[in-house]
Amino acid sequence: MSTAGAPLQVLLSGSFSPADRDDWLAQLQAAMPEARWWRDDEAFPADQIEVAVVANPPPGRLQGLPRLRLIQSLWAGVDRLMRHDTLPAGVPIARMVDPAMNAAMAETAVWAVLSLHRRFFDYARQQQAGLWRALPQRRADEVKVLVLGQGEMGSTAAARLQAQGYPVSGWRRGVPLAPLLAEAEVVVNLLPLTGETRGILDAGLFAQLPRGAALVNLARGAHLVEADLLAALASGQLRHAVLDVFHTEPLPADHPFWAHPQITVLPHAAAATDPRSASAVAVANLRALRDGRPLQHLVDLQRGY
Amino acid sequence: MSTAGAPLQVLLSGSFSPADRDDWLAQLQAAMPEARWWRDDEAFPADQIEVAVVANPPPGRLQGLPRLRLIQSLWAGVDRLMRHDTLPAGVPIARMVDPAMNAAMAETAVWAVLSLHRRFFDYARQQQAGLWRALPQRRADEVKVLVLGQGEMGSTAAARLQAQGYPVSGWRRGVPLAPLLAEAEVVVNLLPLTGETRGILDAGLFAQLPRGAALVNLARGAHLVEADLLAALASGQLRHAVLDVFHTEPLPADHPFWAHPQITVLPHAAAATDPRSASAVAVANLRALRDGRPLQHLVDLQRGY
Ligand SMILES: NC(=O)c1ccc[n+]([C@@H]2O[C@H](COP(=O)([O-])OP(=O)(O)OC[C@H]3O[C@@H](n4cnc5c(N)ncnc54)[C@H](OP(=O)(O)O)[C@@H]3O)[C@@H](O)[C@H]2O)c1
Ligand SMILES: NC(=O)c1ccc[n+]([C@@H]2O[C@H](COP(=O)([O-])OP(=O)(O)OC[C@H]3O[C@@H](n4cnc5c(N)ncnc54)[C@H](OP(=O)(O)O)[C@@H]3O)[C@@H](O)[C@H]2O)c1
Repeated sequence: MSTAGAPLQVLLSGSFSPADRDDWLAQLQAAMPEARWWRDDEAFPADQIEVAVVANPPPGRLQGLPRLRLIQSLWAGVDRLMRHDTLPAGVPIARMVDPAMNAAMAETAVWAVLSLHRRFFDYARQQQAGLWRALPQRRADEVKVLVLGQGEMGSTAAARLQAQGYPVSGWRRGVPLAPLLAEAEVVVNLLPLTGETRGILDAGLFAQLPRGAALVNLARGAHLVEADLLAALASGQLRHAVLDVFHTEPLPADHPFWAHPQITVLPHAAAATDPRSASAVAVANLRALRDGRPLQHLVDLQRGY
Repeated sequence: MSTAGAPLQVLLSGSFSPADRDDWLAQLQAAMPEARWWRDDEAFPADQIEVAVVANPPPGRLQGLPRLRLIQSLWAGVDRLMRHDTLPAGVPIARMVDPAMNAAMAETAVWAVLSLHRRFFDYARQQQAGLWRALPQRRADEVKVLVLGQGEMGSTAAARLQAQGYPVSGWRRGVPLAPLLAEAEVVVNLLPLTGETRGILDAGLFAQLPRGAALVNLARGAHLVEADLLAALASGQLRHAVLDVFHTEPLPADHPFWAHPQITVLPHAAAATDPRSASAVAVANLRALRDGRPLQHLVDLQRGY
């Protein structure tokens, strides 16, 4: 490992709150004190910056950085970053793969599936109505779960669900989807948002599920055709949806999802990167860049994830 | 195994709904067709009955059965059964140990702890208020869970919680409780109700927990001093309680728990015996009795569980 030479020049840019930004900066600096860290609201030397560590940076922010060699995302999903038409061409993008975030996502998936299987959303409504009524209890092995996406998040969630006794199937590229849908009582979406997956959760997909199935969307709002979900809930084709992500975030105050009795709304909180572990992951890539070793978790710009 | 001789005469008695009663009877008869099964609302031959298979039988029902040799409960908790002063003396009581019920209880415990840890009860309140706000996310290994009782239910729940990454401690007889309470952020009660455990969840116990701890009572309502819980929630000593069991069930319509924002009410639904597996367990004991082999899951009448 070569540590000689000038320190790596790193720009931190994101749409965090100031407190979160300071927290990230402190963790990153502690993990890699030998680099020179710059905030994007200070007078950083644009012609020196070699790495941008980003979390939804403002459009245009990554332009005019002639020595930029790596864009390291602090978020797992890079769909928003890649939509920027001001993204510098030819600079590799690495996304975040944070073990704490994977675990958090699996927790949310297990909680959502348990809530649906054991009818805890129904019990919450019964409590509001002052209604005491035990509902039929089924075994976990009677509730088939389909996880869309078998990457970092999807495979961790699938393993945890399986450990709870659910029969779990997983979907990835090259796998026929229809037979999986025909059997799935709960669908958990953990796909990346790409040209192929945008709007995938639509009436056509819902119609292939057994009547009364449930949807858990933990990936991106644009995976879901919102009007189709409302129609499927109204017709009884779906019985409940747990949604963490939305076309517009924050979910607008007048959006029908807020008060819908069969929709559980979470505020994009299914899984956050944890600055403690994610800083170490990001910094490992920065050191690899500095030392000429292979970079990890690079985004395939063709596939889009 | 001796199958010769007259069929075992079995009385099924419980406070089920007629549909549930018929379901149990069908499952039990299918599991042991060679026995003679009687319902307690038909003209059963009291002087012939050798086994009573019971689920909260009416007081007095088990009197006047001179040949009774075993009381097999279909429920796990026998506290209510043992309070009957009309219970025939000297007849062994076996309780239900049903793998499907153990699993269901562990599911409820995991769901409750995940809900508390990941703040899903708070998100549900935020949804009701139309409030979009992600709350701080902690790792499972930062949330210490204490399970009171390490029997069938407690040990299964503890193992599943541990598999989710929680640091779990367990309490049983002979273990000092105070050091466990001092560390516990979530307390899950799975004790049997006995003279020693009645009212154990009281102000004195709550005061030994870290401020802002949470309570999950899945065992019996009489474990909890209800007024002490309300006071602990009001003072902030406790932040939330998930309660499946109550002093009076169904929970009375005017009870303050129903509308309390920090109390999640479940209608005694944490874990039901599953007639499919529980019938096989009960019948195994009936065959052991018939064949003179040792009985399983006998209640210790001195200990009370
Ligand atoms: N709600 C939140 O708080 C939150 C937090 C973090 C992440 N997320 C979302 O979760 C997504 C998944 O993250 P990840 O780290 O698990 O991604 P990942 O490791 O890249 O895995 C993506 C998976 O999706 C599959 N896939 C992609 N396109 C597909 C297609 N057209 N058909 C079938 N399968 C396809 C991939 O298949 P192959 O295996 O064949 O490549 C892979 O299994 C992120 O992109 C982000 O949008 C949400
Ligand atoms: N809410 C529901 O739907 C539902 C459903 C089923 C059962 N339950 C309740 O769950 C209870 C537990 O069932 P189980 O099958 O797990 O019982 P179990 O197998 O008999 O286990 C009881 C556990 O509690 C411990 N214990 C008993 N008295 C104690 C004391 N004074 N101090 C410390 N520990 C004590 C025992 O300690 P040792 O290991 O030292 O013996 C044992 O570990 C049942 O009695 C019932 O009330 C509720």
